[in-house]
Amino acid sequence: MSGIFGRRRSLLITNVVADNRTVDIFVDDNGTIAGIGEGVRKNHRGEADFIIDGNGALALPGLVNTHTHAAMTLLRGYADDMILQDWLSQKIWPLEAHLTGNDVYWGTKLACLEMIRSGTTAFNDMYFFMEDAARAVDESGIRAVLSYGFIDLFNAEKRENECRATERLAAHIRSLYNPRIKTAVGPHAIYTVSPEGLEWCAEFAREQEIGIHIHLSETEKEVNDCIAQHGKRPAALLDDCGILTPRTVAAHCCWLDDAECTLLGRRGVSVSHNPASNMKLATNRAMPYRALSGAGANTCLGTDGCASNNNLDMFGEVKIAALLQKFYWNSPTLLPAPEALAMATVNGAKALGFGTGTLAAGAPADIILVTARAACNTPLHNATSNIVYSCSGGSVETTICNGRVLMLNHEVPGDEEVLSGAAGAALGLVKRAHSA
Amino acid sequence: MSGIFGRRRSLLITNVVADNRTVDIFVDDNGTIAGIGEGVRKNHRGEADFIIDGNGALALPGLVNTHTHAAMTLLRGYADDMILQDWLSQKIWPLEAHLTGNDVYWGTKLACLEMIRSGTTAFNDMYFFMEDAARAVDESGIRAVLSYGFIDLFNAEKRENECRATERLAAHIRSLYNPRIKTAVGPHAIYTVSPEGLEWCAEFAREQEIGIHIHLSETEKEVNDCIAQHGKRPAALLDDCGILTPRTVAAHCCWLDDAECTLLGRRGVSVSHNPASNMKLATNRAMPYRALSGAGANTCLGTDGCASNNNLDMFGEVKIAALLQKFYWNSPTLLPAPEALAMATVNGAKALGFGTGTLAAGAPADIILVTARAACNTPLHNATSNIVYSCSGGSVETTICNGRVLMLNHEVPGDEEVLSGAAGAALGLVKRAHSA
Repeated sequence: MSGIFGRRRSLLITNVVADNRTVDIFVDDNGTIAGIGEGVRKNHRGEADFIIDGNGALALPGLVNTHTHAAMTLLRGYADDMILQDWLSQKIWPLEAHLTGNDVYWGTKLACLEMIRSGTTAFNDMYFFMEDAARAVDESGIRAVLSYGFIDLFNAEKRENECRATERLAAHIRSLYNPRIKTAVGPHAIYTVSPEGLEWCAEFAREQEIGIHIHLSETEKEVNDCIAQHGKRPAALLDDCGILTPRTVAAHCCWLDDAECTLLGRRGVSVSHNPASNMKLATNRAMPYRALSGAGANTCLGTDGCASNNNLDMFGEVKIAALLQKFYWNSPTLLPAPEALAMATVNGAKALGFGTGTLAAGAPADIILVTARAACNTPLHNATSNIVYSCSGGSVETTICNGRVLMLNHEVPGDEEVLSGAAGAALGLVKRAHSA
Repeated sequence: MSGIFGRRRSLLITNVVADNRTVDIFVDDNGTIAGIGEGVRKNHRGEADFIIDGNGALALPGLVNTHTHAAMTLLRGYADDMILQDWLSQKIWPLEAHLTGNDVYWGTKLACLEMIRSGTTAFNDMYFFMEDAARAVDESGIRAVLSYGFIDLFNAEKRENECRATERLAAHIRSLYNPRIKTAVGPHAIYTVSPEGLEWCAEFAREQEIGIHIHLSETEKEVNDCIAQHGKRPAALLDDCGILTPRTVAAHCCWLDDAECTLLGRRGVSVSHNPASNMKLATNRAMPYRALSGAGANTCLGTDGCASNNNLDMFGEVKIAALLQKFYWNSPTLLPAPEALAMATVNGAKALGFGTGTLAAGAPADIILVTARAACNTPLHNATSNIVYSCSGGSVETTICNGRVLMLNHEVPGDEEVLSGAAGAALGLVKRAHSA
């Protein structure tokens, strides 16, 4: 079967369970789901270059991780259990000061491998050296929206540099002509980017018809400082700068009040809930899911970077999201399993705009198969409940993105090379930082 | 290598990482760790019946799950996202009314398989038909403390029945002469057991020198009702009945006040924190870890039953515990990774009294190997951090309990039979309940 991994071919996936029905799926050699249903096997058997026996596995659309700093996989476990400011200033920033493009390449390769293994086929990334991240994503075969972390620190000269860096990345990504890779502008947050910088980002995104990726109201301090400085809350400030659009993904959003939720809903913003990171760093408030979804915002899920999570497993994230919403908002009926899973699939896909997130004829073939022959899916009273509350990323046996098989029965070609390359880059980075 | 699974033999495990050192481990044919260190390979190579190449894996003591209702694996995903009282009265109890001993046997077999796969080698269980649970544990090869759920509903006749059932189970477990299986008394909770019932349980446990397994202050309602009825808080009531001892495991303990934490510490009680279940059922308060551990209570971890979690993966639980403590108590430094891991290993082992929970010469050989060749352990800046925050139960490749190999490189003999037996039992149970 090793030939199945190379370039894209047509695929017939037999005997999988999707939406509680046993079906077959035919993927044409354009990477599109050409048929899904009970009669598909009969109609397409002759055509398919490869047949994958699903063996009763649950078929889902590839999961979508809407907030990452992928290359921070290199910092996994480097520093934990610290106060945010100490953690950043004593551990994370000193290490990041020594990051190279090669580090970001290997860190992103590792992130892509981890995502392929745990069923994520698209992610929304903000970091540095994003041309190197793009190379890693290109090779890995999954989808990404890549943004350069725009941080001007309220300095006009720095702002110019950040604008040029953002333009260069956009031009570079365009030059790749890779339908799996898009760019977005990445104004980091209101406390690191000036209003002028935010306005430039909004305008550039509008012109280029690309997305916006920003952190919003992760901590109470951000809100209090914003009110003290600007006399308004963060979402209102962002709206004044034109940042709140249907192409915007706002990460965290722990400390939004009701009026801000209404505003985000009215602007059609996508909100990336990052529950594990929020819990680990003790943000002390959970994203107001009910208010946001009630207001019409597009609620989705993200893992955040591996320094504050410390993995990229969206199965873990979807469970923690469903648990945290219930616990924090004191309601066991809040964020039921189907809504939690929608955050990680159809809603996330809508946020990134690749047209994925659903298993339907005509949709791009981003498909994952979750084994049914494991304790986490036994018994199978309710597949969605098992996916959300019982399975982990390790239950994914096969991952297909854009019609290309990236993992088959837990086999990912070249994985050992990625693990050792990333481990070496991480060691080198720590060595450089410690000897500096 | 298939001969490795049968009866116990001596084992040499080479090239594993324990406490940040690369070591070998020799297990004698009594199931005891006879040597651990760098020179072990040389000294014992000739002796070992089998050699396991650890290949750089992380070696840990088998994890200990201190609060389960194991056979509730059969209810996994049967009902979620409901208000506690509706969930119990409309879904869980009607199904449980149809449970048979055969169901409990298969449900416990499934639970043991899931625990073996995710690195748990001992658990503390409370349920019904516990002779059948004992048979499942015996066959599975792991350790358990089994208690019959004693529920007298404040009725003298029922109480007599529960006392006799508890005595019968104790006699049965004794008759097995299986060092891996112990019994405990299982007074369910103060709202289901009369003070007379609690006193009988305390006295019986003292006489028999066995443990006590009880639910304590899971919900605020339990506390408020107790104060209204008895004029004291639940821990004080239990203490009056003699229930708080160093052999006692109290599960949940979300709503303890400071005085109760001090009391549990003074009595040397083990407290089983069940964060996933508490979050899912929206208990609205997290176990006061700092106060309890400060008072000297033995803090450990449990998954609770699969109806309210919905799996038995202690890796997931240890991460959620470390996250929830930080989030709820608003301190990112609370429950750091080493302490969280201790809850799942040495503290849990102390609670159950099997002498496990440590990798040291002379200790029983309950050993798990966690693969180092995976994204979750790349890079390996800090093994404990990776175990707690990054790995999942699927990272466990080999599980050894009492010197017997139960899983080797993800292979568990007979696992397909357990999955299909349990799936069949679950279907039959639902069918009986729905046709009743």
